Amino acid sequence: MAEPHKLTAGVILIGNELLSGRVEDKNLAYMAKSLSQRGIKVAECRIVPDIADDIIQTVNQFRQRFTYVFTTGGIGPTHDDITTRCIAKAFGVEIFRDAQTTQIFKDYFGDRATEATYRMCDFPVGAELIENSASVAPGFRMENVFVLAGIPSVMQSMFEALLPQLEEGDPIQEASFTAFTSEGKIGIQLEHIQNQNPKVDIGSYPFRQDGKPAVTLVIRSADQHAVHAAAQDVAEMLKAVNAEILDAPDPWPQEVAS
Amino acid sequence: MAEPHKLTAGVILIGNELLSGRVEDKNLAYMAKSLSQRGIKVAECRIVPDIADDIIQTVNQFRQRFTYVFTTGGIGPTHDDITTRCIAKAFGVEIFRDAQTTQIFKDYFGDRATEATYRMCDFPVGAELIENSASVAPGFRMENVFVLAGIPSVMQSMFEALLPQLEEGDPIQEASFTAFTSEGKIGIQLEHIQNQNPKVDIGSYPFRQDGKPAVTLVIRSADQHAVHAAAQDVAEMLKAVNAEILDAPDPWPQEVAS
Repeated sequence: MAEPHKLTAGVILIGNELLSGRVEDKNLAYMAKSLSQRGIKVAECRIVPDIADDIIQTVNQFRQRFTYVFTTGGIGPTHDDITTRCIAKAFGVEIFRDAQTTQIFKDYFGDRATEATYRMCDFPVGAELIENSASVAPGFRMENVFVLAGIPSVMQSMFEALLPQLEEGDPIQEASFTAFTSEGKIGIQLEHIQNQNPKVDIGSYPFRQDGKPAVTLVIRSADQHAVHAAAQDVAEMLKAVNAEILDAPDPWPQEVAS
Repeated sequence: MAEPHKLTAGVILIGNELLSGRVEDKNLAYMAKSLSQRGIKVAECRIVPDIADDIIQTVNQFRQRFTYVFTTGGIGPTHDDITTRCIAKAFGVEIFRDAQTTQIFKDYFGDRATEATYRMCDFPVGAELIENSASVAPGFRMENVFVLAGIPSVMQSMFEALLPQLEEGDPIQEASFTAFTSEGKIGIQLEHIQNQNPKVDIGSYPFRQDGKPAVTLVIRSADQHAVHAAAQDVAEMLKAVNAEILDAPDPWPQEVAS
């Protein structure tokens, strides 16, 4: 296995709709790709319902375990939006109504604003707000916890806005091969290559194309030379078993593409 | 909030590819919809990397907490497929090679089978195998833990095969409305309706259509009468604010549609 990462992230996706199957999450993959490029490894993701105890407990576990924590969902104006209150409880602080955000809401919504609308001006004491270009309602940061919207377009805008605040590590380098072969055929050699290249993680992802077994092999590490060496071994192995190559790194190894 | 469910499920999605953003999971939503229809509530989902300690710890927590546990991923023939070994460790049992599965593999793969291929004939002692129609490699059950493939077509085939083994509760009933309005406008009334209808969970999911704010309101409960009563309240509330209705239950309340 590759060396442990210095910079880690835990992602908490909040919302009953994700656990009922009504909505498929799009936010984890978006964040994970971007964080990988910055040398921050997503170590775990949890999907939790709109239940205060579940959210508070998960936030408190994650903020101890990981460099950064990102939550999505539950910061809107309805009764099921309980994330802000839960973050305040997790940190043992009160809620305050931010005067500047309230003024922005007044200017933007005018008479359309209700008491529910203004709930989105409430934050835990100590929060730093995260502006976004997709809506007037900010996300916020409490210490190492970033609290973002659940709607992908709004989440993405907040996420891009907070990126300059993150410490960066060595970006994860990646090289991947796709070939017509089966995991059974290459499994033993691939394990040997993994053992010979302990600085990289090699993942094997089988699928079928044109009725034939195919595999994508992904080599990842923050060490570019290690990725290069392992990629050479994989290329030779695929050649040795006469696998028809569908896709190979060019030039390899390349940085992770988004 | 609705009453706690008797029958619960925890889902564990295993694989570095989900945490790097390379692959977006399709399995949680598939399982969750089907389980909801059977009155089994998915209470939490965790996405963990191919790291043995993470998998073992999560499985042992979940099998104590939930009626059923479902894992996906990591049961193939390559070095990164460590789920079977982790389940054995979580239950404190050894691995055995199943003679019948081995014979099926010999007949099916013939000379193409390697030692790696036969790894998929290994199971924890005590496992009950779960056949599937998409591949010759079975999943398996250990007590209340169901261990399934990560490839959606294979996972789905295994999942359908195991369904008769699950105890069924009262199916979750659902009624949903979609209307042009904003969460800010209806937030206070909606909270009132939720408080007046404690047996249901009401979710509010905002989006934009044709440049205008829109909301989907979802009412869920195992109690059909409670769903009906809350749906009536929601319909009256939407009428009172002159919201243009885009979609409403007909006939309502309806059972959860897949």
